[in-house]
Amino acid sequence: MARLSLDQLNAADEDAFVAALANVVEHAPWIAQAAFGKWPFAMVSALYDAMSEAIRTLPLEKKLDLIRAHPDLAGKAARAGDLTAHSTAEQAGAGLDRLSDRQFEAFERLNGTYRNQFGFPFIICVRRHTKSSILNEFERRLRHRRADEVETAIAEICRIVALRLDATVEGPDRLKVHGQLSTHVLDTFSGRPAAGVAVSLVELSGDGEEQPLVRAVTNQAGRTDRPLIADRPVPIGRYELRFDVAEYFSRIGAPLADPPFLDVVPVRFAVAEPEGHYHVPLLITPWSYSTYRGS
Amino acid sequence: MARLSLDQLNAADEDAFVAALANVVEHAPWIAQAAFGKWPFAMVSALYDAMSEAIRTLPLEKKLDLIRAHPDLAGKAARAGDLTAHSTAEQAGAGLDRLSDRQFEAFERLNGTYRNQFGFPFIICVRRHTKSSILNEFERRLRHRRADEVETAIAEICRIVALRLDATVEGPDRLKVHGQLSTHVLDTFSGRPAAGVAVSLVELSGDGEEQPLVRAVTNQAGRTDRPLIADRPVPIGRYELRFDVAEYFSRIGAPLADPPFLDVVPVRFAVAEPEGHYHVPLLITPWSYSTYRGS
Amino acid sequence: MARLSLDQLNAADEDAFVAALANVVEHAPWIAQAAFGKWPFAMVSALYDAMSEAIRTLPLEKKLDLIRAHPDLAGKAARAGDLTAHSTAEQAGAGLDRLSDRQFEAFERLNGTYRNQFGFPFIICVRRHTKSSILNEFERRLRHRRADEVETAIAEICRIVALRLDATVEGPDRLKVHGQLSTHVLDTFSGRPAAGVAVSLVELSGDGEEQPLVRAVTNQAGRTDRPLIADRPVPIGRYELRFDVAEYFSRIGAPLADPPFLDVVPVRFAVAEPEGHYHVPLLITPWSYSTYRGS
Amino acid sequence: MARLSLDQLNAADEDAFVAALANVVEHAPWIAQAAFGKWPFAMVSALYDAMSEAIRTLPLEKKLDLIRAHPDLAGKAARAGDLTAHSTAEQAGAGLDRLSDRQFEAFERLNGTYRNQFGFPFIICVRRHTKSSILNEFERRLRHRRADEVETAIAEICRIVALRLDATVEGPDRLKVHGQLSTHVLDTFSGRPAAGVAVSLVELSGDGEEQPLVRAVTNQAGRTDRPLIADRPVPIGRYELRFDVAEYFSRIGAPLADPPFLDVVPVRFAVAEPEGHYHVPLLITPWSYSTYRGS
Repeated sequence: MARLSLDQLNAADEDAFVAALANVVEHAPWIAQAAFGKWPFAMVSALYDAMSEAIRTLPLEKKLDLIRAHPDLAGKAARAGDLTAHSTAEQAGAGLDRLSDRQFEAFERLNGTYRNQFGFPFIICVRRHTKSSILNEFERRLRHRRADEVETAIAEICRIVALRLDATVEGPDRLKVHGQLSTHVLDTFSGRPAAGVAVSLVELSGDGEEQPLVRAVTNQAGRTDRPLIADRPVPIGRYELRFDVAEYFSRIGAPLADPPFLDVVPVRFAVAEPEGHYHVPLLITPWSYSTYRGS
Repeated sequence: MARLSLDQLNAADEDAFVAALANVVEHAPWIAQAAFGKWPFAMVSALYDAMSEAIRTLPLEKKLDLIRAHPDLAGKAARAGDLTAHSTAEQAGAGLDRLSDRQFEAFERLNGTYRNQFGFPFIICVRRHTKSSILNEFERRLRHRRADEVETAIAEICRIVALRLDATVEGPDRLKVHGQLSTHVLDTFSGRPAAGVAVSLVELSGDGEEQPLVRAVTNQAGRTDRPLIADRPVPIGRYELRFDVAEYFSRIGAPLADPPFLDVVPVRFAVAEPEGHYHVPLLITPWSYSTYRGS
Repeated sequence: MARLSLDQLNAADEDAFVAALANVVEHAPWIAQAAFGKWPFAMVSALYDAMSEAIRTLPLEKKLDLIRAHPDLAGKAARAGDLTAHSTAEQAGAGLDRLSDRQFEAFERLNGTYRNQFGFPFIICVRRHTKSSILNEFERRLRHRRADEVETAIAEICRIVALRLDATVEGPDRLKVHGQLSTHVLDTFSGRPAAGVAVSLVELSGDGEEQPLVRAVTNQAGRTDRPLIADRPVPIGRYELRFDVAEYFSRIGAPLADPPFLDVVPVRFAVAEPEGHYHVPLLITPWSYSTYRGS
Repeated sequence: MARLSLDQLNAADEDAFVAALANVVEHAPWIAQAAFGKWPFAMVSALYDAMSEAIRTLPLEKKLDLIRAHPDLAGKAARAGDLTAHSTAEQAGAGLDRLSDRQFEAFERLNGTYRNQFGFPFIICVRRHTKSSILNEFERRLRHRRADEVETAIAEICRIVALRLDATVEGPDRLKVHGQLSTHVLDTFSGRPAAGVAVSLVELSGDGEEQPLVRAVTNQAGRTDRPLIADRPVPIGRYELRFDVAEYFSRIGAPLADPPFLDVVPVRFAVAEPEGHYHVPLLITPWSYSTYRGS
């Protein structure tokens, strides 16, 4: 989807401005309207600040209206196809459109418990999460007091707004809403990057389920041509990288045991900061390896 | 089971000697009788050499008799409890007494194919193997020519003899029939051994099955009180060590991300030499680790 | 010095072309003249190929003339300031203009021995070397047969030509005459790049002498703002990188022993390929470190 | 020197007891006499506790007498050969008998300053120190208040007593007065211990001086046959281990660059706890290495 330029927005009149940003806040074009008070904007971050300030300074009842305008996570509206385009894409990104019946029921139950307890739906910026971390957040936030939870919901709405704004408007700056996950394989047996190593990335969930995300092969620089995850938040969750090193060392003629001491090397790690850069390299010989959070 | 001393054997007469060693070669006390020609023995290795030479120098028909005296692997005799005590213990050690019906049928089929092809049962020193490596060996050896396969079977019988002899007779020397698997956790964040780290060892099979083998906790020296595997061959196969490092770092008060970057660290490796010493240490910080085949 | 563009050379007439490239081959404008036969040139590499082919295909006597047109290394001409500008800069780059009297005499003696043995001066592309590796080459090449040594001298002249051409002419491509040396410090205690680490690079010579080359401080990415060596061949030789890690860990508040277990970490390595990329990172905690040839 | 057994001391009368331990406290047999009040002793540590308690509970004037009974470090008495046998051996162990004239003067000056400031000689348990750390301690302790410095001197005397006692008396237990320094070379290129690697240990001082301490060669287990330092405190100070890895990899036929990327690998570290175990291993390939404080 082509993005609007900030210049175009700055040339628009109020109606066109509000229309362009209507969907940035779920069912609440009046936030864009409020932000228009600070129009024009030199930077996308200034536009974001105006919109998030409009949200954060709402009186409590208006905040609750805004929160209640959001759909349930993975709820019946989603199954019925009744979400906004933004919400549909966001929920699908976290796999909430591919729930088993058992998982669907778990979400329904938690949605219900949460709504009963607080009187509004559970809001979370799903693009920053995996199914597992959403379930963890449900559990954690159900222990909140209501006043704190209203502010948590508002903060999550601001995160959603930032991501939608980044997807909608292009300007001289870029909101820091994206992270990155990358890898790099160094062959310290030969003293050079390991080329042609098959790498796969899977998402792990608490119940032992595995979700394959990416398969790639390292290039001459020992890197994958593209980062494994980029141009989006890296969802909070647990992952495993798998490097097919026996195939590599066999191909370059290194002497190997039979079966090789190391075959597919698994590196299991968790992402805690969706906007962070996670570089997880592997230094490898047929008999040893190291890995670390690099940069 | 208390072992006989070599001195006792050297003090025995021929009948007692043969009786003592009758079960070292399956259903073939006449091998012990042949070895008695070199009696007495200064070392256990000399006794082994006499027995294995008696086996290796048999004429072909006698070799085939010896081979045919062995039971099928995981076969009906095993299910019916008709094996010698040695065979029963050996097959149980590789888990051949705990096969699913599907696995039992796979073994039956391979036993039948092998016996049809070569005219004698498949012999393998099961204490040096896992179920997976036995299946690999079946496949590999079915490609042999018959003459080579007779010699392979005889070599496996000699390995079985060495292990049984080691379990039966004690002397000034020890046959090199045992390997070892051990680990060691070094906390390079604090510069000291990591104490109290839960470690588990599982055997992996080709079909994704996992067999838990050992659970242990590291002591003040960062080692387990006993090696993970010792006083036996380390079965050829694929393994995974799992180190619960997040629990450790949390306990010593190291700053961790939430969720921690590293939680349970899996180290997957294969054993190719059952008589080898496999030391697989882990050097760890909350953000990095190294492992290698040590000594 | 501003470089000529290849377009300018392609627009020049023969006289201007030869004048522009006169000094690319020491005292031999006739090589540029010969290369003009293939004028115009789409790529700098095509121009280099034409010049080096003109050199390599010379009859033996002409090759010897070309070789003899070169000055002695670190010889009396250099002391007297009688070298071409190119030669002066090249010899200074390897420190040949800063020899002690003892070193000057060593070079004079080797120059004399070499000239006596082969009848022509010792030619080497000094920008690819350190003083130590030049002395090693003297020794190694004095064992050559004369015919081989003529070809070695011609090959070295071609390397000199490539570097001078790269410094003189700019085109759509670039000759692969430059290498790079860089570093990177990762703090695996904190899981982030180590910023503000003082790094120094010294050249080591066989006799224990040290030549400081660069001092730098790592930035927020754990890298130096510029590579330690770039835009030139990395001279063949032995180096030491020194990382002031105790100062860094003390600054970030990591608990350290007194004195700290690691203070200044020396990493000693050799460069064998002047056109290679040498990345020599350091992964460090207060109690451990790793280094490797990276990329 | 053969040690007395604790049993012999427990069988002795008071005179023989005091005579046997007369030299354990410099020029103060009356401390042994005081300790005799608790005779007999089941453990060496109980004997040590009795002697150190006798020292620590002295009135101030007696403490000062005891302190003043000690000679200057590296002073004129040492040059003249007027020290007790214990003091002579201890000072020689730290190299104080091999001072240059400049160093001798530095010690004389510091001895004088210290004695002027506090009215008694500078006492330090030299077996726990290198020349450099003694000079650091001089500087640090000159900033003490006199009352604190008396206690510091008494604590150092107790350390001297513990070491002398350990050298004099043998019993069922052993005082924890010794540390250890060891190494281990693992070849992660081949997956086995690196045998035959030449290792040397040198002591570094602040002024760039190097004192070679030990040369050894690794055995089949990649270890030196004996620890590099054992059965004594490891002196506080800075050290460098040097591993000749290019010679090793060349010998086993690993492909190497010319010159090899890694040749002699220096590992520089400091010892802060003389009674600690310092294991400083090297994991090495031709292109990478790791080191850490192990155990």
